[in-house]
Amino acid sequence: MFKHAFKTLIISTLMFSSTAAMAEMEKTYRWRLAETWPKDFPVFGYTVKSMAQRVKVMSNDRLVITIDSKNKHKAPLGIFDMVRAGQYQMGHSASYYWKGKDLNTMFFTTRPFGMTATEQYAWFYYGGGMELMQKTYQPYGLLSFPGGNTGNQMGGWFRKEINSVEDLKGLKMRIPGFAGEVISKLGASPVNIPAGELYTALERNTIDALEWVGPSLDLRMGFQKVAPFYYTGWHEPATELQFLINEKAFNTLPKDLQEILVIAMRASAYDMYAQSMHENAINLEKIHKEHPEIQIKTFPSNVMLKLQQANDELIEQFKKSDPLTKEIIESQEHYQGIARPWTRISDQTYLEISQ
Amino acid sequence: MFKHAFKTLIISTLMFSSTAAMAEMEKTYRWRLAETWPKDFPVFGYTVKSMAQRVKVMSNDRLVITIDSKNKHKAPLGIFDMVRAGQYQMGHSASYYWKGKDLNTMFFTTRPFGMTATEQYAWFYYGGGMELMQKTYQPYGLLSFPGGNTGNQMGGWFRKEINSVEDLKGLKMRIPGFAGEVISKLGASPVNIPAGELYTALERNTIDALEWVGPSLDLRMGFQKVAPFYYTGWHEPATELQFLINEKAFNTLPKDLQEILVIAMRASAYDMYAQSMHENAINLEKIHKEHPEIQIKTFPSNVMLKLQQANDELIEQFKKSDPLTKEIIESQEHYQGIARPWTRISDQTYLEISQ
Repeated sequence: MFKHAFKTLIISTLMFSSTAAMAEMEKTYRWRLAETWPKDFPVFGYTVKSMAQRVKVMSNDRLVITIDSKNKHKAPLGIFDMVRAGQYQMGHSASYYWKGKDLNTMFFTTRPFGMTATEQYAWFYYGGGMELMQKTYQPYGLLSFPGGNTGNQMGGWFRKEINSVEDLKGLKMRIPGFAGEVISKLGASPVNIPAGELYTALERNTIDALEWVGPSLDLRMGFQKVAPFYYTGWHEPATELQFLINEKAFNTLPKDLQEILVIAMRASAYDMYAQSMHENAINLEKIHKEHPEIQIKTFPSNVMLKLQQANDELIEQFKKSDPLTKEIIESQEHYQGIARPWTRISDQTYLEISQ
Repeated sequence: MFKHAFKTLIISTLMFSSTAAMAEMEKTYRWRLAETWPKDFPVFGYTVKSMAQRVKVMSNDRLVITIDSKNKHKAPLGIFDMVRAGQYQMGHSASYYWKGKDLNTMFFTTRPFGMTATEQYAWFYYGGGMELMQKTYQPYGLLSFPGGNTGNQMGGWFRKEINSVEDLKGLKMRIPGFAGEVISKLGASPVNIPAGELYTALERNTIDALEWVGPSLDLRMGFQKVAPFYYTGWHEPATELQFLINEKAFNTLPKDLQEILVIAMRASAYDMYAQSMHENAINLEKIHKEHPEIQIKTFPSNVMLKLQQANDELIEQFKKSDPLTKEIIESQEHYQGIARPWTRISDQTYLEISQ
């Protein structure tokens, strides 16, 4: 009798614990993600979808992320606030959009004359970048992860040729953020205009120039029809998008789902860098074939030198604003200082000697 | 009574199916992976460990991969055969090691004057490369995946300076594979020597030069002590390692574990490219600081031209060997042809104009 009761107790315990384990293993987490981009946006939007799909399959439907585009939530630049408030567990955007809230967020996207994408990924994952990014976002209860790289962005579409620093004086250009401040030091007038109005603004001479992304995303905007000079890049050498996660929501996930989410974001972010290369390549070919009138040019070296000087002055000012700002900038400068010599003797030299 | 029996039936069915589901969800797969590298090999070995660790955590211990290094299995170049035979479910090696079994495997690692790492990742994932690689491995019952990129490899350590094509004549150099055939067309004598004997061979003049990887892995070999000329690369612009999987073993895994494995390999492979940048950067700095006598040089342009011509001739011969060889080479040539113009106006131009 006693033996029987004991056996029952063991069986019940086993059943209970395996039921509890099963309940945990079968528990479904339904998350919502808000992205800055419109519905079905190429490359950026694809990155988010691929991440969510991978999480769904890897978790056997235990973590299902639905995506709200800006058409739905109507707040493309509200991602930081919505994820912070827990209205969405996740977001996809770009860290430099939050520079008005916290200047330090700006440095985790890219910066004029900064690192290339590969140098920057090495800095994030092996050179202390991730730690500094988490230190920046931690006070807001947010976790931030690389969210996909566009590669080197083009310097923009210009209606007239830029032959000297004089040509920049008074130039009205859509160029937001850090780079806008750099060109304003050279006498240009940076303006910000919503994406939907850019083509008309350029066509009607409201602006003289604009930068957008690169061949991958520019052609569908139609800029090639109204601005014949397409300048190479200096201001966003490695624009990294961002996955934002509400830290409390992340902490509710079991360890396996946390890892699934982190690795899916990591793989999809890297993928976007490869996909950007692909889209840039096929659309540059399209420019050459279908728009032979477009002239691809690089600013003359004296213009580049002045831009770099203006940039250096701004960087020195930023360093004085806050100890963490100084720490981030110095970490990036140090890393670029050791990574660039390798980039020069490897890929740069190779590109110069090969056909 | 009937109602009661029906209820019991439903409950039993539910219990059975959830028990079956639970059994499936709790089933543990124990896999073995054989790698070409010795135990605790830096960068390459780290990539394999990180992949296995990610799989373990994401699968909640349902897929556990143990790693056998060459010290254990004693067959560093037997990975293809062992995975094919099912002796190991997985391997980590480099596709070009199997060129003796099947020439087509050679093209999925890198080739002289070929694509850069970013161009090549874009080709693999968006330009048809993965499909051609699977077509190549399918007859062997194997699945092949990118396994990590070293970045552009250095051209090697030379005891004497190379000033003209004449200096290559009779030069004994450890340089395996495709590149060895290229330099032999210029009169050099390519030899293959096991890694453990390389330093002594170079020190004792058994060979005049050798190529290994890059600063990331070369310094620990000690070559800088006996060969003062370190030449930049042309022969392996983007060496991609390889994860090999026995297809039958892969098909036994449930869908979620298949996806976990594929995404873990993908993230860890990309990571290796970033880690290689990091290790190359810090070790190049070390060369400059601790070995200032080392001269980093690039072959003169007439030597590069002759190497490229010899390479083009070989490529034309390979194209004639087999329809799939031709398809692979033409796919790569086409892709490099559209990707390189973008690389030139983006990263190359940027590197030239920035400090």
